[in-house]
Amino acid sequence: MKNELSVFFDRVVPEIEATLDKLLPAQSVSPPQVHKAMRYSTLNGGKRIRPCLCVAGYSIYKDDWTPILPVACAIEMIHNYSLIHDDLPAMDDDDFRRGRPSCHKQFNEAIAILAGDGLLTLAFETLGQTNSFSADSILQVVRTLGLAAGSTRGMIAGQVLDLEAEGMSVTASHLEAIHRSKTGALLTASVWIGAYLGGASTGDLEKITRYCERIGLAFQIVDDILDEKQSRDRDRGKATYPAIYGIDKSREIARNLLNEARATADTFGGRGLMLRQFCDYLEHRQL
Amino acid sequence: MKNELSVFFDRVVPEIEATLDKLLPAQSVSPPQVHKAMRYSTLNGGKRIRPCLCVAGYSIYKDDWTPILPVACAIEMIHNYSLIHDDLPAMDDDDFRRGRPSCHKQFNEAIAILAGDGLLTLAFETLGQTNSFSADSILQVVRTLGLAAGSTRGMIAGQVLDLEAEGMSVTASHLEAIHRSKTGALLTASVWIGAYLGGASTGDLEKITRYCERIGLAFQIVDDILDEKQSRDRDRGKATYPAIYGIDKSREIARNLLNEARATADTFGGRGLMLRQFCDYLEHRQL
Repeated sequence: MKNELSVFFDRVVPEIEATLDKLLPAQSVSPPQVHKAMRYSTLNGGKRIRPCLCVAGYSIYKDDWTPILPVACAIEMIHNYSLIHDDLPAMDDDDFRRGRPSCHKQFNEAIAILAGDGLLTLAFETLGQTNSFSADSILQVVRTLGLAAGSTRGMIAGQVLDLEAEGMSVTASHLEAIHRSKTGALLTASVWIGAYLGGASTGDLEKITRYCERIGLAFQIVDDILDEKQSRDRDRGKATYPAIYGIDKSREIARNLLNEARATADTFGGRGLMLRQFCDYLEHRQL
Repeated sequence: MKNELSVFFDRVVPEIEATLDKLLPAQSVSPPQVHKAMRYSTLNGGKRIRPCLCVAGYSIYKDDWTPILPVACAIEMIHNYSLIHDDLPAMDDDDFRRGRPSCHKQFNEAIAILAGDGLLTLAFETLGQTNSFSADSILQVVRTLGLAAGSTRGMIAGQVLDLEAEGMSVTASHLEAIHRSKTGALLTASVWIGAYLGGASTGDLEKITRYCERIGLAFQIVDDILDEKQSRDRDRGKATYPAIYGIDKSREIARNLLNEARATADTFGGRGLMLRQFCDYLEHRQL
């Protein structure tokens, strides 16, 4: 039997994909190679967790989520640009992504670099085009996303720290810092931006941040556990939770984080159901 | 004897550099490697043509250009990100930039990719932080810069077209399309954004666009002529004006464009002096 969260995803994901399809330049738009690559890497059956979390945050306050869709898609573009660049030979050197050749294997390295650049640029342009919210609110979103994607506390910082840590022994707190910036920052921004544009109070936004920090870390620990089972990260000498704590203790840490996140989600009552069930999803998926 | 333009540059460039220095994360900010690379590639004695043109556009309407400096610096960050990525081995494979090792030679490829990503992200975040203009105006700047840097008609489109044209015989109109997107779009956006935030009328903005399209193309032809003399682009089979038209005809085309641009600059009277003298600068620099 389907729970409310999977019903929610089933409804939101097609809308996200339709909006992405509309926002991304068509394959025929010159120069076609880079637009083919941008579409290849974005319209590829991703789980759309970040944009769905953004819609979930917005849905705490609003019933019609249509206005938030372009903003949620801008977040998904930023996520996909980072995957394209992370897969490059000079970075994680991954030939496959979601079971298909990664962007630089399907096209070439130059096109992959430029397709990533194009998605990052389009994300901000898309925010600039959004007119369902006040200009002041959108600028707040630009700042929040810039920080979450950026080099000091965001995704780029996380990727640098992650590359530097390869083959090194890292402490637990260092590993947490990597995860917080590499995965946590954009996940947190996703729910935060949704709730913010939905009209959340300052107090609610603080709760949302607390929730997100916990699911962000839990999300990455769960990913580490999965990867450990496939021995991928261990072979590469990547810093992971199982490498530091072992599988059992890692599971326990993730469960505790998810319990805390659930307690915060519950303070939103019925409107926070998606946030609560997202914790269940993370827990039951792989723990 | 110095003309007004070089006096203007002498005054503006140090302010641009001081503002860049303030906006870029310090070298010590974690993770230091990427911030060292962002600063290495940005604070490197560049000519600052784009931010100065932005200030020049603003100065048609306002005497105190302090408020426009962060916006001008965002444009310079986007320019520098594109140079870092263009120099990568998978792209133009240039080991040197302004007489020093290019970013990926000084650091490594991963850091160079991430430093470029970081500068692009910081450029938009900087716009989001700007509070000297209305939020609506800044969102217009976000859209304009997104388009100028983007994959359909901007810098990314130009780089893709340029890479595709290597070793191919291209028509004059194709070459103009490459230049218009690769160099012209961001140059045009620079003056346009300055004038727009200065309060230019729609009619003035149309004239500014006409002016910029001409100097943008002339700028690139002049660059082509210089590179031709150094045989760099010819060896690589790059599409250039001298390759299609020969040096003399290329010079004539550039001169005509600059005459047209000067005529447009003159319609702004004394306030357009910088724009007029920028044409002289381009002409006397290398023609």
